[in-house]
Amino acid sequence: MAITMYDLAGTEAARRFSPFCWRAKMALAHKGLAVETVPWHFTEKDKLPTPNDGRVPVIVDGDRVVHDSTAIADYLEQHYADRPSLFGGDTGRGLTRFVQNWTETVLQVGLVRLVVLDIWRHIGPADQDYFRKSREERFGASLEEVVRDREARLPAFRASLDPLRRTVERQPFVAGNSPSYADYIVFGAFQWARAISEFEVLAADDPVRAWRGRVLDLYGGLGRRAPAYDEPPPSPPPHAGEGQGGGS
Amino acid sequence: MAITMYDLAGTEAARRFSPFCWRAKMALAHKGLAVETVPWHFTEKDKLPTPNDGRVPVIVDGDRVVHDSTAIADYLEQHYADRPSLFGGDTGRGLTRFVQNWTETVLQVGLVRLVVLDIWRHIGPADQDYFRKSREERFGASLEEVVRDREARLPAFRASLDPLRRTVERQPFVAGNSPSYADYIVFGAFQWARAISEFEVLAADDPVRAWRGRVLDLYGGLGRRAPAYDEPPPSPPPHAGEGQGGGS
Repeated sequence: MAITMYDLAGTEAARRFSPFCWRAKMALAHKGLAVETVPWHFTEKDKLPTPNDGRVPVIVDGDRVVHDSTAIADYLEQHYADRPSLFGGDTGRGLTRFVQNWTETVLQVGLVRLVVLDIWRHIGPADQDYFRKSREERFGASLEEVVRDREARLPAFRASLDPLRRTVERQPFVAGNSPSYADYIVFGAFQWARAISEFEVLAADDPVRAWRGRVLDLYGGLGRRAPAYDEPPPSPPPHAGEGQGGGS
Repeated sequence: MAITMYDLAGTEAARRFSPFCWRAKMALAHKGLAVETVPWHFTEKDKLPTPNDGRVPVIVDGDRVVHDSTAIADYLEQHYADRPSLFGGDTGRGLTRFVQNWTETVLQVGLVRLVVLDIWRHIGPADQDYFRKSREERFGASLEEVVRDREARLPAFRASLDPLRRTVERQPFVAGNSPSYADYIVFGAFQWARAISEFEVLAADDPVRAWRGRVLDLYGGLGRRAPAYDEPPPSPPPHAGEGQGGGS
């Protein structure tokens, strides 16, 4: 039986933008586990299976309910230990926490100040009231004020990605030659921005963008199947033997 | 036969302050390998064994010469594979690169602007000329100008440690329950500041400082044996049964 996952959605049910839900979806795919997602909205607290903490992701696996993305990753690693590891052992798990803490104190903090108003635009009226009130209290400013100078802040945001950039310039994934849960944590943050905002946070030639493309390609392009803003228009397939290299 | 390591020293031969040499010394201790260090100064390029790139650390292990701290860690992991692992596997090695890139683009960049003038004060006259010239070219400012407003910049520096702080608040080491090479990379940066400057970069109650203390305690207090500035005066041992908890 497939695992069920409650997944944050916008007004369009297909628009899935929670960074924490993306972590869990990629972890399930990494383990090769089938999942059926249930679109869920911020204010539907009473629709979640118990126990929960009022947020998603929550998964239901047979008679087990697990909530919180970190707990879900630990659950999957332990209960599906014979499948590809999310952490690569105890040291990998410990270091994944550092990547998570960087993502949550630097990357997501920087991103939210670029896209928070776009999130508000994509959610339904009931969620909009909840979202605006809770976020404006957190920022001490209106959502419009938070994003107002985002163009001016973009260079500093991009500079803050230096540790990530240098890493994925020198190896294919954050975790080395193959992706692990640390990649999904970082990816979840970018997927959040990408699903909800037309504001392109990464320059076209940024190695971070190339890495994001590699993660989007994983598991049959799982990350590309949700509506997003940054996809280039499909180009016709090149003729066989036509040169692909070089820029013009 | 013990491994020989060329180790950056100040005017006092015992003052060892290279962050990269600290990485290598801790890695050697982690592997349980005996080492004899040779104090070396910035301008003694011709005293290094070949091959080298004019910098330390360089180690000599029998008839092998290995230079560059990252190459040394990889060498030790491969050639002493039966001893405790520095990385805990491929994922751990990949994620260690992220910690290294954070250390080199955030932590060391922040630290050098706090302590660079103190480094200059601790090295010999020949090294002082070389050091001032090369660093002032890099900064585009005199060493005095670089550190002038360091008190004002301290809060931002401490805030930049959030990913590290949150990690070592929640687990004993950067790598989890036990230390690995990622811990030594971060530790090397703090040891550099600590060996060369009386300027305390960490608040007394900072969890990062408690973590640094745990790493200083490793391997018989290896990191404490070098001259440093931040050691509290030795306090008398508490009477047996005297309460240790609580603050006053």
